[in-house]
Amino acid sequence: MGDENKNLTRRQVIVGAGAATMSLGAVTLGASKAEAAGKWDHESDIVVVGSGAGASTAALIAHDNGDSVTVLEKAPIPGGTSAKSAGVLWVPNNFALRSRGIEDKKEDCVRFMARYSYPEKFNAAQPHLGIGQKALSMLEAFYDNASPTIERLQKMGALEVAEWRMFALDRPATDYLDHVLENKVPAGRTLGPLKADGKTVGAGVDLMIHLNGALKKKAIPLLLGHRVTKVVINGTGRVVGVEAEVGGKTVTVRARKAVIFGTGGYAHNPELVALYQRVPIYGACAHPWSTGDFINIGGAAGARMGYLAGAWRTQIILEEALQNPNLAAGVFFPPGDSMLQVNRYGRRVVDEKRNYNDRTEVHAQFNPTEAEYPNHLMFMVYDQRTAEGFAGAYPLPEKATGAPYVISADTIEGLATKLGERLKEIGPKTGGFSLAGDFVANLKATIARYNGFAKTGKDEDFCRGKHAYDTEWHAVFSPMHPGSKFPKNAAPNPTMYPVASKGPYYAIILGSGALDTNGGPMIDAKGRVLNTKDQPIQGLYGAGNCIASPSRYAYWGAGHTLGNAIAWGAIAANAAHGEAPVEAE
Amino acid sequence: MGDENKNLTRRQVIVGAGAATMSLGAVTLGASKAEAAGKWDHESDIVVVGSGAGASTAALIAHDNGDSVTVLEKAPIPGGTSAKSAGVLWVPNNFALRSRGIEDKKEDCVRFMARYSYPEKFNAAQPHLGIGQKALSMLEAFYDNASPTIERLQKMGALEVAEWRMFALDRPATDYLDHVLENKVPAGRTLGPLKADGKTVGAGVDLMIHLNGALKKKAIPLLLGHRVTKVVINGTGRVVGVEAEVGGKTVTVRARKAVIFGTGGYAHNPELVALYQRVPIYGACAHPWSTGDFINIGGAAGARMGYLAGAWRTQIILEEALQNPNLAAGVFFPPGDSMLQVNRYGRRVVDEKRNYNDRTEVHAQFNPTEAEYPNHLMFMVYDQRTAEGFAGAYPLPEKATGAPYVISADTIEGLATKLGERLKEIGPKTGGFSLAGDFVANLKATIARYNGFAKTGKDEDFCRGKHAYDTEWHAVFSPMHPGSKFPKNAAPNPTMYPVASKGPYYAIILGSGALDTNGGPMIDAKGRVLNTKDQPIQGLYGAGNCIASPSRYAYWGAGHTLGNAIAWGAIAANAAHGEAPVEAE
Repeated sequence: MGDENKNLTRRQVIVGAGAATMSLGAVTLGASKAEAAGKWDHESDIVVVGSGAGASTAALIAHDNGDSVTVLEKAPIPGGTSAKSAGVLWVPNNFALRSRGIEDKKEDCVRFMARYSYPEKFNAAQPHLGIGQKALSMLEAFYDNASPTIERLQKMGALEVAEWRMFALDRPATDYLDHVLENKVPAGRTLGPLKADGKTVGAGVDLMIHLNGALKKKAIPLLLGHRVTKVVINGTGRVVGVEAEVGGKTVTVRARKAVIFGTGGYAHNPELVALYQRVPIYGACAHPWSTGDFINIGGAAGARMGYLAGAWRTQIILEEALQNPNLAAGVFFPPGDSMLQVNRYGRRVVDEKRNYNDRTEVHAQFNPTEAEYPNHLMFMVYDQRTAEGFAGAYPLPEKATGAPYVISADTIEGLATKLGERLKEIGPKTGGFSLAGDFVANLKATIARYNGFAKTGKDEDFCRGKHAYDTEWHAVFSPMHPGSKFPKNAAPNPTMYPVASKGPYYAIILGSGALDTNGGPMIDAKGRVLNTKDQPIQGLYGAGNCIASPSRYAYWGAGHTLGNAIAWGAIAANAAHGEAPVEAE
Repeated sequence: MGDENKNLTRRQVIVGAGAATMSLGAVTLGASKAEAAGKWDHESDIVVVGSGAGASTAALIAHDNGDSVTVLEKAPIPGGTSAKSAGVLWVPNNFALRSRGIEDKKEDCVRFMARYSYPEKFNAAQPHLGIGQKALSMLEAFYDNASPTIERLQKMGALEVAEWRMFALDRPATDYLDHVLENKVPAGRTLGPLKADGKTVGAGVDLMIHLNGALKKKAIPLLLGHRVTKVVINGTGRVVGVEAEVGGKTVTVRARKAVIFGTGGYAHNPELVALYQRVPIYGACAHPWSTGDFINIGGAAGARMGYLAGAWRTQIILEEALQNPNLAAGVFFPPGDSMLQVNRYGRRVVDEKRNYNDRTEVHAQFNPTEAEYPNHLMFMVYDQRTAEGFAGAYPLPEKATGAPYVISADTIEGLATKLGERLKEIGPKTGGFSLAGDFVANLKATIARYNGFAKTGKDEDFCRGKHAYDTEWHAVFSPMHPGSKFPKNAAPNPTMYPVASKGPYYAIILGSGALDTNGGPMIDAKGRVLNTKDQPIQGLYGAGNCIASPSRYAYWGAGHTLGNAIAWGAIAANAAHGEAPVEAE
């Protein structure tokens, strides 16, 4: 606290006299409905906004701390995007690792996270690993809280989890940057929620059955259809509640200790996407209510914004997303081995088997000479082998041409012609994105070069299949069908196989998409929302996709988003527990 | 105005009763020194913050409109970054074009700006060119105001300009994206300030001698050493003045109509750079007081933020910037023809002759497989021909090894060894950035490929020298010395010449730098700062590098920044003139 806040504290004695005051969108007490009516519609120690994994964890931990809690959810159903997710939780030093005798030391894990999140600054020999004390403290807070929170939730009877294993491979999950020196535990940091049977690992819906169910069991009020529109701030600048819209009426909810936001990103807010993303997020797995409310509400309360251009990225089937941007799934793992992706010049630009978050960044790569985004849309090109041998692995339909988004032709020339026609059709929605004049010639050369790499097993351009991430997730999500008439891939690199010299050929148009975005108000290591002077806005906390991610642009491994949401939800609830309650004004 | 503001207006009757109120960092009247003291230290219709081209134009236009004006500048000298600049002004449809009978139609020019600023959405066949009504209205406002503002300033006796011609080439300046279909006037949109002689075109210092001189001539108070710390907001949410710090004391300045910010970006604020840029801005041409104050002050007032990751980019000599980030110049035009740039893998990644803003974007390109920025630092590699034949063209010293940042060796292997050593030395400041193991082999292959392109004149990878921008700015800024002992470049592509097969070879380490950043509070087409509901914050305006650039990430041509600063300064002043004055409270 600087001098300024002391001044405010001195002034606070004359607060509450009923004088109406300014409002920047946040509402001050004097201008709030609560103050006007002389009472609040609801009140509790802690008010939680949202009901996904981060919000629900915050509510449950707060309740366990002895605080009274009210949960407000704008959707008519609880669970948020978490309920639509795979439910995986990235939790370093978790009980499953420990039970196998694997030490995931704090020092090592923090070094890995710092390396992945701050590649341009990370330097293990420097103080604070070269990333600065504040950034480092966020990584440490996550490590310190992730596993203990899971265990606490289990002890409270609010969650049951087990190690999340790689399906058919039946081994611990490989991290998304497994091969760097700094990753000392490259597999096994993932947990998953148990299904109702108490044995099988389930998905996001199971996770939220646990967490939302626990809210009910513990009689924590969860008010659906309550769209929070602003925070209420008293004369000392402290957040003391929120206003919410319920069926066109304003409801006020008092928070004696704190308001914790655990709402969504802005993936389904077209205006914010247009403003903050360099190329559109055409579709997102986030539930449709993810419209970035906390960016507007927190911004109105004077929060410092961070990483507004960020997102948890994935490629998506463009033509499906144009029909409906609320996606069931992204193209997380492009299937097939005789498959590659090219841009409008017919050129490869990325390791097609890299993890979805990092891989999808290439869509926004800028070409300075033409002042364009040449990878804005990408084309997944493959042959009959991949179409049949890997059929049914999303986005490949069971029958080669069994989906309207699959384009096919007997020759590369024919494929390019049809692609060009399809692009023209959707041009009004894609800035008229088109194939370059030399697309066919380049694509042929690209395939020839790719085929050479497939034969030697070494992708000299993009290292496809070089690291365990590529090979293992390929094996899990797109193993070749055992009975296929096509030869097995006996090559040294199981992710690459030469594309056939004869057609038919297939193409799917891929766009940039997201699980959700991850920029918004900045928080500190206690989950407190910071103002533009980097001081906490008293009584205001955040966790999950609505805040500037403490991991910045990095996605440490499967379950990264939910692992972070839960840890930061708990961090916020625990810090809020220590707030001195504000008496009624 | 929504319903909410109506409510506030009704409440406004009880404002001013002296009750202190909340503060989010912006200060409300009741908590301000002015209110406490019962008077303001200064007052005028319009308060302008900053004294560069945008701020000074706003002040001059406001004065010309009949408004009283106070200008506050935190530095001990006036003129801001504008005074350090080249002073060029990008002004479409300017008098020089018209005098040559060249029509720079609004429709055409707006189409070009939309194409350059929104490559992923631009579609001429769509309503609002596919970029949306709001974005389009900003481009239209710029076009409508740029040339008329220059003419008005000239008529007022506040500025003298002439066509800015390309020095030795003595022709109108070529735009930074001259070759796209949408650019109907690819040269001639640039003006420059006249020197005191009234004849010769000068630089930024001359521009500011005009504009700052006019402030004096018109007796507009310019208060130096006044660091504005916050805006003062009254009970209706209207900005009514500012607080400034002067030698440790707080001074209050009342604005009856409006406050207009024309301050700097955040290029010299290391914390904001670390937060918002993906790779560091190691140095900037901005004057050292460019610390992004309006991001914090506007954010505290509830402004919506835009393009926080943006900057007017240029490559810089890394080792100079590490000594002193306040640069005299950037590496705007890498000189030489037997010269190329490579990344840590020894690979070219960009047309080395492309304009500085677009070219420098490659430094932040992300490699998904290694989760790294492989172009974070780039290496400008050249031979004796370039070292001597183009000596003295920044950053080449007059003597080949006449600067400590030039690394030289007889062989490519030797050059790599020395580069590696130098990188190790500066590693603590660059995240330990190093050369990849195959740097030497790749660099040799890269040079061989480059030499092949030089012979045919066709850069098949990056189109170097294909477009007029490359060749003309190359000819202006790095013509070969006439008396050089090296053969003239008679190749079909004057920007490329084979790198010698024998040493010595030279290298300079380049980093990402900027003129200044260009993200911050969003404005509308009247220059009004918008809140997080996209409604104007009453009485608050912005122009120049301190706001979210209306051109987004694009740099339309030489003089882009100043042309925009002046147009938006005028737009703000003219809109502010129409504000109903607020009476003393």
